[in-house]
Amino acid sequence: MTMEPKNVAVVGATGAVGTEMVQTLEQRNFPVKNLRLFASPNSEGKRMSFKGRDYVVEPLGEDSFEGVEIALFSAGSERSKKYGPIAARAGAVVIDNSSAFRMDPGVPLVVPEVNPHTVKNHKGIIANPNCSTIQMVVALYPLHKRARIKRIVVSTYQSVSGAGQKGINELNDQVRALYSFHSVVKKAFPHQIAFNCLPQIDVFAPDGYTNEELKMVNETRKIMEAPEILVSPTAVRVPVFHSHSESVNVEFESDLSPEEAKKIISGAPGCMLVDDPPNSVYPLALDAAGRDEVFVGRIRRDATVKHGLNLWIVSDNIRKGAALNAVQIAEILQ
Amino acid sequence: MTMEPKNVAVVGATGAVGTEMVQTLEQRNFPVKNLRLFASPNSEGKRMSFKGRDYVVEPLGEDSFEGVEIALFSAGSERSKKYGPIAARAGAVVIDNSSAFRMDPGVPLVVPEVNPHTVKNHKGIIANPNCSTIQMVVALYPLHKRARIKRIVVSTYQSVSGAGQKGINELNDQVRALYSFHSVVKKAFPHQIAFNCLPQIDVFAPDGYTNEELKMVNETRKIMEAPEILVSPTAVRVPVFHSHSESVNVEFESDLSPEEAKKIISGAPGCMLVDDPPNSVYPLALDAAGRDEVFVGRIRRDATVKHGLNLWIVSDNIRKGAALNAVQIAEILQ
Repeated sequence: MTMEPKNVAVVGATGAVGTEMVQTLEQRNFPVKNLRLFASPNSEGKRMSFKGRDYVVEPLGEDSFEGVEIALFSAGSERSKKYGPIAARAGAVVIDNSSAFRMDPGVPLVVPEVNPHTVKNHKGIIANPNCSTIQMVVALYPLHKRARIKRIVVSTYQSVSGAGQKGINELNDQVRALYSFHSVVKKAFPHQIAFNCLPQIDVFAPDGYTNEELKMVNETRKIMEAPEILVSPTAVRVPVFHSHSESVNVEFESDLSPEEAKKIISGAPGCMLVDDPPNSVYPLALDAAGRDEVFVGRIRRDATVKHGLNLWIVSDNIRKGAALNAVQIAEILQ
Repeated sequence: MTMEPKNVAVVGATGAVGTEMVQTLEQRNFPVKNLRLFASPNSEGKRMSFKGRDYVVEPLGEDSFEGVEIALFSAGSERSKKYGPIAARAGAVVIDNSSAFRMDPGVPLVVPEVNPHTVKNHKGIIANPNCSTIQMVVALYPLHKRARIKRIVVSTYQSVSGAGQKGINELNDQVRALYSFHSVVKKAFPHQIAFNCLPQIDVFAPDGYTNEELKMVNETRKIMEAPEILVSPTAVRVPVFHSHSESVNVEFESDLSPEEAKKIISGAPGCMLVDDPPNSVYPLALDAAGRDEVFVGRIRRDATVKHGLNLWIVSDNIRKGAALNAVQIAEILQ
């Protein structure tokens, strides 16, 4: 596949995901003709490096997208809602990491290992799914193809980087404060996250589920093109800097042995089987940090339902859960 | 109820649970005639305070239990297996916090809020359940009485104090090492626990579940006297010092609305409802530390099964999960 160099913009370039997007474009040697970096006014003039050259961060404006062919957005829903359509009208294909367009029936919601064929249906905007959903569907889709998933009960162990650089800073600041007998300051999270677990990510919907949890329900169905799959989620923030872990209980339509599931995961795109419990080998958040793969282990039979498995799924939420997935979508566009 | 003062021994008195046992006896004003504190030889001669008086820690021996009426054991399974029967033969009632006797059909496994009537069946030894099981059954038993539980899928977020003082020290040491650019030392846990999640507590059984997970299956059934209840567990160690959190998905025989479940929990012994999500009010490990109650919140309908609820259950694993529960059993004996 020859890739013609493109004019690429990154919107929200100085954030945790934006920074990773720029690095991922470089690491994967994405053919960039011109790179433009946009961020909020207080990052204006900041310099970022790409392929050995310094780029100056520009403030985002309505005329920012002239000549841009691919625009990677990670600057929050409000900015995506305002500037996404502007970029699309200017001729760019927008790959948007916010939740703004994900459930829009006219917008493809893409995980390249699962539904790459939907990319071609875009009308200027493609949505990048939520981090906790991406790693779950990368691991479960190959199993679903073999044995059809009926129901998923998932509890997450999500790192603070899911809240962006401010989440990383807050855990860091709180730990330092506690270890130097200063008082703990809370801004990014509703309660102290250091040495604590918070069963709240995003705001609550009237049914008692958080938006983060509802994303796992709705996005999973859309990406896997399986509206019949039932998902019962609990999303929890834990004091980990990088990578989300997930305890996933799956009930299938037909029998799938742990051995066969392991074999399928071993050969599945984007997955790496890490599953040797007697030797304490299983996926770990620390090991997944900075890696591209979705790591799957502790695959074992759940004998409490007819065709059940339990799995432990771990991935770097900023990489595969955000930046890498977006760049992979851009690669499909090529 | 008049309580006649008893001769009490604490075996493993210098450990995390043993220390808490001594404090709990004092805080609850348990009628102690004589107190004897036993620990391993390297704690010999150490002094511990009880009701304003200093007690010298003694080495444990076969003749340690003469005149002892209640012996609280928390010194590991091997010591319980050896010295528990010796203490019972010497006339003491042993309340044992290890897993040594829990599944012995002749030994009551007691959570005072659930099955206090089984205490009287003891033949010298009463078992204190595993911490992660205790908090789950305290919260679920009142719901089970109302609507009968069919199946539980539970994922835990367990603090390092569950591994005793060495677990607490290890998280503390690792965080300090990381923040002072020293290398991290692993002893208590198979991998770095600081800023990581470990899907392994205790060793693995051949079916791929850990002993910690199997305890949640078997002990839940025995305590609730409901061998038909299905439990699908995943036990995870998280970088939290105190209190275990649990994400619990329950399928009932008959309908139980979240509203009714909240009302039941509000009035249930040992439980405290903490459930106002729109105001970010739900149980938290940090808030539960040092408290007696089992805190329950995020009670919401799971519409993916016929009669389903999701709950978030948090309790101090060293208190209600170990020391307090043992002292409560001793109070029933009075």
